[in-house]
Formats: sequence, structure tokens, C-alpha cells
Amino acid sequence: MALQLKWVLVTGGAGYIGSHTVVELIENGYKCVVVDNLCNSSYESIARLQVLTKTEIPFFNVDLTDEEGVAKIFQQYPIDSVIHFAGLKAVGESATIPLKYYHNNITGTLVLLETMRKFGTKKLVFSSSATVYGDATRFPDMIPIPEECPTQPTNPYGKTKLAIEEILADLHASEPEKWKFAVLRYFNPIGAHASGLIGEDPLGIPNNLLPYMAQVAVKRREKLFVFGNDYDSRDGTPIRDYIHVVDLARGHIASLKYLDQIGDKQGICRAWNLGSGTGSTVMEVYKAFCLACGIDLQFEVVGRRAGDVLNLTAKPTRALEELKWRTEMSVADACEDLWKWTTGNPFGYQVMGVVDTMFNKPGDFGSRLITVGRGSGFEASFTNVGATLVDLNVNGKSVVIGLASEAEYLDESNPYLGTTIGRYANRIYDGSFTLEGTKVQLALNEKNATLHSSLQSFHKQRFLGPLVVNPNKNEYTLKYILVDREGQFPGDVVVSVTYGINIKLQTLTVEYEGHLAKGSATVMNLTNHSYFNLNMFQNSSLNDTEFKLLSDKVLEMDSNGKPTGKIVSLENASKFISTPSGPHFDTCFVTGAEAPVDTRVNDLKPVLTAQHPLSGIKLTILTTEPSFQFYNGGPGYLKNHGERFGFCCEPGRFINAVNINEWRDAVFLKKGEVYGSRTTYKFETVSL
Amino acid sequence: MALQLKWVLVTGGAGYIGSHTVVELIENGYKCVVVDNLCNSSYESIARLQVLTKTEIPFFNVDLTDEEGVAKIFQQYPIDSVIHFAGLKAVGESATIPLKYYHNNITGTLVLLETMRKFGTKKLVFSSSATVYGDATRFPDMIPIPEECPTQPTNPYGKTKLAIEEILADLHASEPEKWKFAVLRYFNPIGAHASGLIGEDPLGIPNNLLPYMAQVAVKRREKLFVFGNDYDSRDGTPIRDYIHVVDLARGHIASLKYLDQIGDKQGICRAWNLGSGTGSTVMEVYKAFCLACGIDLQFEVVGRRAGDVLNLTAKPTRALEELKWRTEMSVADACEDLWKWTTGNPFGYQVMGVVDTMFNKPGDFGSRLITVGRGSGFEASFTNVGATLVDLNVNGKSVVIGLASEAEYLDESNPYLGTTIGRYANRIYDGSFTLEGTKVQLALNEKNATLHSSLQSFHKQRFLGPLVVNPNKNEYTLKYILVDREGQFPGDVVVSVTYGINIKLQTLTVEYEGHLAKGSATVMNLTNHSYFNLNMFQNSSLNDTEFKLLSDKVLEMDSNGKPTGKIVSLENASKFISTPSGPHFDTCFVTGAEAPVDTRVNDLKPVLTAQHPLSGIKLTILTTEPSFQFYNGGPGYLKNHGERFGFCCEPGRFINAVNINEWRDAVFLKKGEVYGSRTTYKFETVSL
Repeated sequence: MALQLKWVLVTGGAGYIGSHTVVELIENGYKCVVVDNLCNSSYESIARLQVLTKTEIPFFNVDLTDEEGVAKIFQQYPIDSVIHFAGLKAVGESATIPLKYYHNNITGTLVLLETMRKFGTKKLVFSSSATVYGDATRFPDMIPIPEECPTQPTNPYGKTKLAIEEILADLHASEPEKWKFAVLRYFNPIGAHASGLIGEDPLGIPNNLLPYMAQVAVKRREKLFVFGNDYDSRDGTPIRDYIHVVDLARGHIASLKYLDQIGDKQGICRAWNLGSGTGSTVMEVYKAFCLACGIDLQFEVVGRRAGDVLNLTAKPTRALEELKWRTEMSVADACEDLWKWTTGNPFGYQVMGVVDTMFNKPGDFGSRLITVGRGSGFEASFTNVGATLVDLNVNGKSVVIGLASEAEYLDESNPYLGTTIGRYANRIYDGSFTLEGTKVQLALNEKNATLHSSLQSFHKQRFLGPLVVNPNKNEYTLKYILVDREGQFPGDVVVSVTYGINIKLQTLTVEYEGHLAKGSATVMNLTNHSYFNLNMFQNSSLNDTEFKLLSDKVLEMDSNGKPTGKIVSLENASKFISTPSGPHFDTCFVTGAEAPVDTRVNDLKPVLTAQHPLSGIKLTILTTEPSFQFYNGGPGYLKNHGERFGFCCEPGRFINAVNINEWRDAVFLKKGEVYGSRTTYKFETVSL
Repeated sequence: MALQLKWVLVTGGAGYIGSHTVVELIENGYKCVVVDNLCNSSYESIARLQVLTKTEIPFFNVDLTDEEGVAKIFQQYPIDSVIHFAGLKAVGESATIPLKYYHNNITGTLVLLETMRKFGTKKLVFSSSATVYGDATRFPDMIPIPEECPTQPTNPYGKTKLAIEEILADLHASEPEKWKFAVLRYFNPIGAHASGLIGEDPLGIPNNLLPYMAQVAVKRREKLFVFGNDYDSRDGTPIRDYIHVVDLARGHIASLKYLDQIGDKQGICRAWNLGSGTGSTVMEVYKAFCLACGIDLQFEVVGRRAGDVLNLTAKPTRALEELKWRTEMSVADACEDLWKWTTGNPFGYQVMGVVDTMFNKPGDFGSRLITVGRGSGFEASFTNVGATLVDLNVNGKSVVIGLASEAEYLDESNPYLGTTIGRYANRIYDGSFTLEGTKVQLALNEKNATLHSSLQSFHKQRFLGPLVVNPNKNEYTLKYILVDREGQFPGDVVVSVTYGINIKLQTLTVEYEGHLAKGSATVMNLTNHSYFNLNMFQNSSLNDTEFKLLSDKVLEMDSNGKPTGKIVSLENASKFISTPSGPHFDTCFVTGAEAPVDTRVNDLKPVLTAQHPLSGIKLTILTTEPSFQFYNGGPGYLKNHGERFGFCCEPGRFINAVNINEWRDAVFLKKGEVYGSRTTYKFETVSL
């Protein structure tokens, strides 16, 4: 039985709780569309969610008050249900700019609900807050707080949440058999995803205890202020109900499943507390976090804060009984996860020196053009289609050929510029091979061969991500993911392309990793297909480039240009200067023995150097791979340029290895195996 | 000291309470701009308000949720304060379509407030409702209801009102020295304006007692249902606090003045009940209305209605003490005024057989093209510029020359087609005259004369209104008003142009009335300048039209074409058939003696007949005026047509009467005097 996955629209899905919920949704077999106006969040979280979940997550940068924009989402996706996080959420700010809070939160919700009505979407999980209760200590017997506690929010933020709860109740009452609404009243979410990839990224000074402490720990803030230690609690500090954000996210899955199992002819509008039921004092949380990060954070006790009360702990029994949900993680778990997130991302999703634009497709976050190292003298730009290296700029001079838009990369005329070649690079003669006793036939795109995977080529697929990190000021890494489904090739594979840029060393490293996600075996040979020209800033050809090929062995070819299976020596090729009448290469140089499937066990070995006297730029290519295809540009290979305008050095496995017994093991990938390789492009400026 | 009038934006100003408040605002020296989406009201109320107040009321047909539309209003007018009525208001409907209520009422208010913030408008009077209290009888001691009574609305309508009150409170709290908000909680508004021109015009079945009874009285509904007579009241029916809508409107003026007198550096956000403090039972109101209309209306007592409670009477002392406002009219007054409104307008603002479109200027309600008698065989169309007769259609045949847009009427090439000529029609030689010993000099627009008032001509001014009424199925009247300020002519005058259309008799009557509103004396001579052509449907000239001019006396002209002051006989003009070579007329025929200023004391007297053998249409013109200018169209008088395409018969006072002692009294208008005249165009179909 093919299970039809349901589409869930997650509003505010780029935010803290939203992003964690997206992970849980995908793990629970839902498909997610995210809409977020990014006013207080970053698209980076979505890119990371894609890498983390290896799943495409359609994203709309739309404000919910934009009726047309919201309608377009429902037109494009058959939204089954909505989890509605989108909303401004800073209590203090809400008292300063209440109109903005009311408009954003309430109008946004009204537009969302009206659009749901128009498109027949009936289920919604609403992100409410324990703030709707206001000061529950005003009653003698309402701690822990049950859902029956009278509501009386004390700030505009809380009022918008309550107003939306009432709108949902009124809408449900107007058509009680139709609407299914789950109202989730959160207590205090803390922590981050265990992967360290997503977490809370507050802009400005954090309002909440944990993010504030995290910033103290990484020295962004001086010390923690504790607002009052004269409350009637265990240690004199107020008691709150802290809940791990992943537990909270799972509460959404529980409530969505609860709505899913209600019959078609029945509606509901009901509120559930999402809390642990266990209160912790400020000092208890402080100690747990100090333990997690191993630092005794400085703190200062100051006076009580207006509006604070002793104890706001949830009574979570309704959620347990009805949703079968309870918290499973402790404050200590949350502190550990928060610390992992904080140390890995001390500035949250903000990475310095990264310029992120849409690659000529405004609003289409799948077509980003990301540049790292801007202003450093070593800049690299990438786009998602083909996980392509669009530009590499050394001291103000571009040294690779690039195109101006995603559309040009997708055009038939693109000779694989800068792109990732896969699942199987280079030629498979006759387009066929035998795998586990079965002949696999691929479409031919040359006279007698399948080149660069033909129909299923990676270079026209959009990779997920990237995950961009900047572990120190000189280094960036971008990790792209592709899930390449079984098609002409057998088996689903998951491939990651990780670019490492060191702006100080002026190196670009590309690392490939792949494994089978479905199926028992496939073939794999990955490479990057950049065309280099070290004097391109003068728009000149390769003329005068000095090449050294650090090998004199090449694959022997028969009269049809097909490898015979032998390795032979080539004379006089090891060192030459490019001239218009000079030799033409489209040749596979051998630099190592038959390789393992994962060549990263090898050392990086220099295989080619090139330098140009006019630019003074020298390139050294180092790789773990056993061979490289050297191609110096024949006639007509490149629109708008003559021959010999750029050269390629494509490190990889031997050509046609799939069909040659001695070479085959290097390209056959079995279930459980990991394919891998690494290549570094190192640039130097040499005296002229 | 020139008092600078303040502009007040009235949202929902076309509605019941809004329209009554506009009258009071104007009477209290405010200038009003109205914005209304007309979803539950009619522009007719605005046209009538213009006639009633003799004041231009800029109108914007804009929904408050339309940010751009609202901003345009604030860009065009320096709005000093806002009275915010706009909102959906049917309690029952609000439970059926809550989203629409929340979106319209709350989002509309948020857009309004945000726009006020942007444009620096700080004062707002908000139309709230006693509905915010919910069932005040749930407390032991809250009847009469004070403003301190806890709020707890029981339906989405009431919740939207309360939510807006809270938004205002939060906004005020965010900038307490800036915002000035008056929240007015209405009890039960009833009645109508004493003029009978404006009142409540509920669409569908009225929800409220009085409008329902009014419809029973005019037989639109069968009988009144009384919901329960077993309450613990004087007569067993529930008690409510009814308040005359004009009293209520005045409460807005009182609160606006209260806000106006608060200093610049001080804000406020405060609620006031607007009620009488006196409760009336349903049966007491029933009896009062029966007395007012003189009919014992049928009624039936049925069961109690869900949600009804015994007594909801206001405690109005806060408004009395702070706003110095109290109700001054009784339920009996309200019933009488309602009855006047109902009998004058049994279908409210809806008039059958009237087609109302914008005259090629979409959205500009000042440029309406109103057609009455559509489908009756006698249709007349009018527009506000010049209070112009645009078309007159007899049995499917247009008999007057018209233009296709307001712009064409305003163009220099327009030879006064169908328009009202004033303040002084026809020629004043040398453009000058002496009034009260002072020489008045006008701009000349002919070689030696001022024709049709030259620069200050009515034909380029937009008249106010019209008031359209349909007293019986055969008759329509349209009343236009113009306030023509002192300019070249001395003194402000108020002129009304009333068109009467009888579709059965096929008559169009135009009646002029004018008086001085400021100044001690001026001159006046008004006429209509339609060009008739009884065979125009064949696009032919006047050829073959048979004319009878029922006078052989004309004004004698000197050699310069200027009246000598003598009346002479003209031979052979009384009866002729128009031919291309026939006589040309631009001649003043005398049909009566020197006239009084108001010729309506005279009988209508036929002065001209014309008929055409091909169309079979005969026109008889009857007038109370002492003369008429007959003009049969010289060369070039009319773009796109040859000479002799149409003829004019302009009843009026003697040419140049201002400068001839014997004739002057007929055109000199003194303070307190009324200028008047009446002319009827009667059509018949004669056998061919």
C-alpha cells in the first residue's frame, strides 16, 4: 500500500519552535511547506533543515497578511493541515508597538483561516502560549495551571494569542462539524536540536533566561541578571516550567495526529497545555547550564521585574490523557543541547562574510547564489543547481568560467561549467554495464557512450541546503545534499558535496560522500567540472599557461577512443606551455593505483599545476583520486568563447571502470558502503 | 479671526449612526470626509447629506482593510480626528461568519490606526457598543450598567468591539501622551433625522425592534413578534435603553470636543456609555410607535429569544459629568421621526428604476450619471457637473444632445449642452452693472458682453446631491444644490435645481430656486441650456421640424446686437418649418410682462412647440418665465455636428436686464428674497 504523505503548511517554520517541529513532522512522515516572512528568522534554518532531513522543504517568503501570497501556497500544494507558529512574540516589544503585534498576529491569522476556508483545509494546530493565563497566582488554587484557568493576558502579545484562540473558537462554533483546531499553550521552551544544526537565534538582547546565559557563556554578554531572589521558593528565585523544544515539537505531532484521527464529520476546538508539570527555579536552571558548558557563569541578583510572579507551572495531564504526550527530556538535556548549538553557532545563523542572493530568480530560495570570503581576496560563489561553483575569485581575478543565471546553467548549451558530475562521471561506453548479474542500460548522449550520466545528470538537479558554517574567521564550509532517486541508475543514493574554503591559504576543497539509501548496489563516480583560466580577467585564452602534469601515465585508448584497460606512458606531456597550435588533451591521466570506494583514506597528492605569467596566479590541484581527465577545450565546446579558453581537471575513477574487471571495485557502491573523495584547488601568487 | 475648520474623517459615514453624526459635525463647524465600503449602506445617504447640509462631503468608497486606499485619504485631507463607525454589526450574522467580522472590524481598525500613526492624526472616537458588557444581569448590582461593569461579550460581534477597545487601550498605553481615544458604548439607537431625509436602511429582515415595526407599518412585514412577555418587568417584556440617533450623534460631538480641549501633551483613552438611563419595555416602545404612525400594528407574543435578559439600561452619569452630554429626545420623538422617514422612504434609499453609475470616472461619486425611468419609455439622465441633463430619451429616441463623459462637459468646446446656466444666464453687455450703487465688472467672454456668467459659470461646477425621490411609481424628482460663493458676482448664493420626471405624462420639469446665503444683494437669472433635436435618432439636422413660437414679440436690438430696452413685434416667426436655408434665430422672445423675482407665482404657459414628422415626437415647452431665447444653431457651435443640428429654448429673464431700469427688479436678488422659476418640457407622440 502506497502511503500518501500529507502536506502540512508550517507558518513561521523558519523560527525556533517551527524549525524543530519541521524536523519532527518529516520524521513522522509528513511533507512540509514552510511560509515565513523572515522578520525574526533566517532562511539558513530552512537550508539546514533540508540538510538535516535530506528532504526538500518548499519555502515561501510571504507575510501571512498578504492574501494573494498565501493563496498561491494553497494553489501549489494540497495542504492537508496547518501548524501556525507565525507571530511576533516579544512581550516587552508588544507593549511598545502594539499595532504591529495586533496586525501581524491577528490579521495574519485571519488571512490564513480565510484561505483555509477557501481551499477546504480544515485542520490547524495553533501556537498559543501560557501567557494567555496571565498571572495564574491571582487565584488560590490554579498552580499547577490547568486549561480551565481563566484567561487574562497582561500584555498585547498575550492578548493577540487569546484573541486568536477566540477567533478559532468562534469559527469552530460557526461550523462545528467542519473545523478541527488544536490550541497548544506552551510553557517555557528551551534547548535545541541534538544535531546542533538548528536552535534559537534571538536577534538583539535575548528576553529569555537560557539564550541569555548562552550568550554570557560565549562572552557576547557580560553576566546574567537574576531578577529577585526573595520569592517564596526553594532558593528564592521564581519557578517556571521549562520544556525541551524537541519535546514541544513532538507535542505538535501528537496534536496533529489527534486531529487526524477524528472522523470526517466531526470538528473540535480544544486547548492543551504543553509543559512538563515540573517547575524549576532560575538558579536551578542556571546551575544546570553551568554544568553543561563547564563554566561558572557570572551572575548578579538584582531587583524583581515588574509582572513576575512566583510560580507558573503547567498542569499537563490533559495532554497526557488525550494526546498521549509527555515531556521526555530534562532541563539538563536541554542545557547540553543548547550548549552544542551555541558553541557550533556562536552567532546563530549569522555567518560573517557571506553574501546570499537569489540567482536571478527573486523569491526562489532554491536558486540561491552564495558567496563566501567577500572582500578577503579569495571569494567563492556557489548555487544549488548542480551544487555548482559559479565563481572563484583570486585577488580580484575570476579564475573559473561561470554563467549569469540558474537558467543558463540549466540550458542545453552549458558544458557542465563548475558543476558536480554524478552519479557517474565521464564515459560509460555503450551506456551499459552489468551490476549484480543484471545489465543496466543507460541513455546514450554521445555516439557510443553515456557521458556524465546523461538523462540523470546531477548538473541539472537542485541540491538541498547548503549548510554554511564558519568555524573560524578563515574557513567556511558549505555542505550540499542531493537525494538522487533510482531511475536509469539502480538504487536511491544520498550524496553530499562539501566545499571548504580557506581564505588565508587560498584553497578550495571539495569533498564528495555518497551512500545507498535504497537498493543493494549502484555505481558512483563523482567529480567537479570547473573550467579554469588563470588569465581570464584579461578575457584571453589559455595561451602561455604553463602546465605541469604530475604523471606520465594515461589510459590507453583503442581506435574508437575507448579504454583498452591498459595503462601506458605518454611522453612529453608532463610539462608544456599552452599555445594555439599546441596539443589537444581530452585524456585520462593515472596518478594512483586502483582505488578503494572511499579514496579519502589516501593522502591528497598534487596531480597538476598551472600558472600564467600575466596574472601571476598559480594553481595546484591535489586529490585523493586515482586519475584525472585533463581537457583543454576543443572548438565549440563553449558558447561565446573560442577553443582553448578554459581547461578542466576532473579527478575521479578510471574511465569506463564499470566495464573493466580490474577497475570495477572502485565504482561499485554496495549497501552500507560509503563512497568518498577529496580534491583541493590551491592558489598562489608567483613572481612574474 | 478666521476659524480654521477641522477635518474629521468619518469611517462608515454612509451608515445609520454615521450619517446622523455627519450632520451634527457639519452643524458644529467641522468638515467631514467620509470613507465607507458601502457593504451595508448606500451612497444615497451621502448625496442626501450634501443636500441637507448644503456642504460638499468628500467620499471615498474604500474598505478600511485597504491600506493604500486609506492612506490616499490622509494624503488628500489634513485629517485632524477620526470618528470610527465602520464595522459589521449584526450579532446573529457574526456567529455565522465570524472570520468576516473579525477581519473587517479588527483589521480595518488596525489599518486605520496605523495610517493615523503615519500621518500624525491622534484623536479617534470609537463606535463601541453596550454589547461589550455581555449579560450585565450576571452581577447582582450592575443595572443600570456603569462603565466599570466587567466586559464579557457573548458573540463575535461584541468580541470584535471589545478587541478594538483593548487595541486602543494598548496603543494609548504605548504612547500615553500622544493618543486621545474616546470609546463610546452605545445602547439602543432608534429614530431618524427630523428632516426625513436620512434614517436607518436595514438590508434584509431588520434585527431591531423599531425598524421591524416600521416595516410592519408600511406592510413590508406582516406583524411584530414579541419575544416573551413573562419577564419580571412592568408589562412582562424586556427593558432596554433606547436613545434617539440624533442624541447619539451629538454624543460624538461632545466627546470629540472633549478630546479637542485636552492639551497637546496629554493623551486619554476612556469609555463612556451613551444611553438615556431610562429603560423602556418592548411594549412601551410598541405603543409609542403605534401612536406615532396612527396604526395599531399587529403583533404576536412568542417565546423568549436565546440570550435575551430582563434589563439592559445604561448608567449615563459619566457622560453627563465629563462630556456634559445627555439625551434630550424621547422614545416618542424617535417614533415620530422614524415614521416620517419611513413614509417618505418606504424602501429606504432604494429607489426603483434608477440606474446610478460613475460618469466615466470610476470611484468618483461626485461624477455620477443618474438615469431615471429606465425601461419606461421616458428616461432622463443627469450628472452633477452643471446639474446637467445628459440625455432625454422618448420611446427609445434621444431628443437632446449629450456628451459621453464629465471631462467633455468640462471641456472648452462644450456649448453649454443640457447644463444649468447661472448665476446669470444670457448676456450682460460690457460685463458690468451697478448694484447698490457699486459697479460690478465681470470678465468678458464675448466681444462686448459677458455670456452665461463667464468665469463663474455654473456649468463647470459640481452640484451637490442629488436627492432622488420616487413619491409614486410614475414620478421621480432629483434635487441638486449648488453653493456659489462670492467671486465676480457679489454674495454667496444657494441654488437648487430640481428635476421632476413624470414617466406617464412624459414631462420633464425643471425648477430653480435661489437665495442669498451671504451678502445683501446679487443678480440672478437661471435657465437650462438643452439642445433639442426631435429627429436625432436618425442623426439628421433640424430639417423639417415644425416650430410654433407662441409669441410675436421680441426684444429690439440695436445695430451692435444689444437690447435697446424696447419690445417689438416680429412678423412671420410664429410658425415655420426648419430648412437648411431657413431663418437663423438667436432671439429673445417675450412671453410675459416684467416678472417678479420668483416667477413660480405665474402659471406655466406654453411658449413653444416643435415636432418632427419622421420621429412623430412633439415637444411643448411651458414656463413661468417672461421670455425665452430661441437659438437654432449657427455654424461651428457644436463639435462633430453641422449647423442646425439642435435648437435651444432658454426660458429666463430679459437679456441684459441688469442694465435696464424697467427690467432690473426681475434679476436683482436681495437678502431674504427667493428667486424661482419653473419650466416643463412635455413630449407627445403625434400621428405622422
